[in-house]
Amino acid sequence: MVSRSDASWSSALVECVPNFSEGTRHDVMDAIQAAAESVRGAWVLDRHADAVHNRMVLTIAGTPGPVAEAAFRAAARAAQLIDVSQHRGVHPRIGATDVVPFVPLGTTSMRVCVELAVRVGRRIAAELDVPVYLYGEAARDPKRRRLPDVRRGEYERLRTHLASDPALAPDFGPPRVGAAGATAVGARRPLVAYNVTLATPDLSVARAIARAIRESSGGLPAVQARGFRTADPDVVQVSMNLVDTQRSPMTLVFERIREEAERRGVAVLESELVGMAPAEAVADVTRQALKFGRFDPDAILETRLLERVLGVGT
Amino acid sequence: MVSRSDASWSSALVECVPNFSEGTRHDVMDAIQAAAESVRGAWVLDRHADAVHNRMVLTIAGTPGPVAEAAFRAAARAAQLIDVSQHRGVHPRIGATDVVPFVPLGTTSMRVCVELAVRVGRRIAAELDVPVYLYGEAARDPKRRRLPDVRRGEYERLRTHLASDPALAPDFGPPRVGAAGATAVGARRPLVAYNVTLATPDLSVARAIARAIRESSGGLPAVQARGFRTADPDVVQVSMNLVDTQRSPMTLVFERIREEAERRGVAVLESELVGMAPAEAVADVTRQALKFGRFDPDAILETRLLERVLGVGT
Repeated sequence: MVSRSDASWSSALVECVPNFSEGTRHDVMDAIQAAAESVRGAWVLDRHADAVHNRMVLTIAGTPGPVAEAAFRAAARAAQLIDVSQHRGVHPRIGATDVVPFVPLGTTSMRVCVELAVRVGRRIAAELDVPVYLYGEAARDPKRRRLPDVRRGEYERLRTHLASDPALAPDFGPPRVGAAGATAVGARRPLVAYNVTLATPDLSVARAIARAIRESSGGLPAVQARGFRTADPDVVQVSMNLVDTQRSPMTLVFERIREEAERRGVAVLESELVGMAPAEAVADVTRQALKFGRFDPDAILETRLLERVLGVGT
Repeated sequence: MVSRSDASWSSALVECVPNFSEGTRHDVMDAIQAAAESVRGAWVLDRHADAVHNRMVLTIAGTPGPVAEAAFRAAARAAQLIDVSQHRGVHPRIGATDVVPFVPLGTTSMRVCVELAVRVGRRIAAELDVPVYLYGEAARDPKRRRLPDVRRGEYERLRTHLASDPALAPDFGPPRVGAAGATAVGARRPLVAYNVTLATPDLSVARAIARAIRESSGGLPAVQARGFRTADPDVVQVSMNLVDTQRSPMTLVFERIREEAERRGVAVLESELVGMAPAEAVADVTRQALKFGRFDPDAILETRLLERVLGVGT
C-alpha cells in the first residue's frame, strides 16, 4: 500500500500547505519556516499568518521527496516550539502542526500525494510521537475524509477521550496526545481562494448568491462560498474556496455568479485571487475564454521551463 | 552602452529563439541543439524543424548569462557545420545562424535583452568571424529594426555587395561573408503564434478578417495576420503572429476576430496555439475573462516556483 513508484515520483511536482498553531510569535514562525527552507529541492513560496486565527500557513512546492522532507522538518520544529494546550485562536485545531495536505501540481497524479501523506504521516507518528489521522484522499476511514470531521472537538477532545474512544484511534502513532497534539495528514486537489465583488451594499445579495452556488446547498460541486461585507461599504463579496477546479472551473463559477447577480439586478465588479492559482486552473480559463481546442498548462512557457529545470513532467 | 547592470541581470529571466539554416540533416540539428544544451542554467524547451523551409528553431530559456552562452555555442557549432552557399529553402536567410532574438520573460526589462544582443553579437563577430547586424529593439540603425529589411536580398546579396555597399556594413565583424554567412542578433517582445479557425470553407472570409485586424493594413498594433486554408476543407484559419501582447492582448485579438466573423455571418470554431505563450499573456487573458482587478504572472503557482528555483524575479 505504501509501495513507492519511482517512475511517478521522479517526474512529479507537488505542493504541501502545512498549517501550524502559531500566528503571533514571530521567532517561532521564523524557526518553523527556516526548518522547511533547509531542504534542497523544496521551496517555501508563501507564508500567511493571522493573529486572530493564531495560525500560520506555509506553501511549499517542489519534487515529492524534498517537499515531504521539508514538511516533516517543519512539523518537528513546531512540535518543539508550540504547546497546543496553551494555544488560543478562533480556528479549530488539533495540534502544533495541525494539518499537512499534499497537493498534486501539473500532471502529477493524486496517487503520488496519497503515498506522500502515508509516508510523512508514519514518520511524524514514529519520530515525533504524535498521533496522526489520514484525511482527504489519503483517508483510510471514510469518516475521516472531511477535515472538519477529523477536527471535531479539537485538541481538547483528543486529550480527554483519545485513550478511551476507539473512534478516535489514530491511523499512526500513540493513543494519547502530548503538548504537540495530533496532526491530520492528507492529500487533496489544489485549492483556489477566489472572491467576486458585487456592486451593491446589500449583504443579503452576496449571501443569497453564495447559497445558490455552493455545493453544500445544492450548487456547484467542490465550491465552498460565503457572503461577506468588505472594507468598502458600497460593495459586498462572495468569498470562495474552489476545492477542485477540474470539477468546477473558475470560468463556470464566475459565469454562474454573474447570472445570479444579473437576476438580482446587480453588476459584478471584479474578481480577486487570494494567494496563488495552479497553472492548470489558469490554463483552463484561457482555454474557455478564447475557445482553445486544448490549452495545457505546459503551453505556458514558464511552466515548461519549470518542468525542465526540475526534470519533471513529460 | 554595453555596461552590464548586475542587479537587473541576476534577477532576470530571458528566452532566446535562434534560427538555423538546416531543417533536414538530423545529425547537424542534433549537434547544434547539443551545443545549446551543454550550458548549465539554460534549457532548450523546444525544437522545431521544417524541411521545406530547411530551417530549425530552438527555444532556449533561463537566466541571461547561461542563455547567452548557449546561444553562442549553438551559433559556433552551426558555423562549423552549415555552408549557407549550399543552402536551399523557401524561408529567407542570411547565415548558418540566421537570426538570434533575445526576449524578456516575466518582469525582465527589454534593456537586459538589448544588452545581451550586443554582447552576443560582438562575440559572434569576434570569435566566429561573422558579420553581425543588430535588429529589433537592439538596432542601432533605424533601418535595421525590421528583420525583413535586414534580410532583403539574403545571403547571396551580402556575398556580392557587402564589401562595396556601405549600407550593408555590419554593426560588428568583417565586411565579407564566408560559408557561415551573416547573423542578425536582436531583442524583441515574446511572440505568440496564434490561429483562429472559422466555420466556413470560404478562404476570402479568412483573408478579409486577416486584413481587417493586422497592423500593416490599419488594424491592431503588433498583429501580423494571414488567411489560410486548412487540412479540413470545411474550415479556414486566420493565422497570426502576435508580436507584442501588451499592445494587442490575445483577448482583444480574439474578440475582434469574433466581431468581424459575426458581421459576415460566420462562427468562430476554436483557437489554436502554435508553440508556447508566456505566462504574462495567459495571465492577462485570465484577468480580462474573469474581470480580475489584477492578475500577475506570479499569481500562477508554477511561475512563482520557477522564480524561486532560479532565484529570479521579485
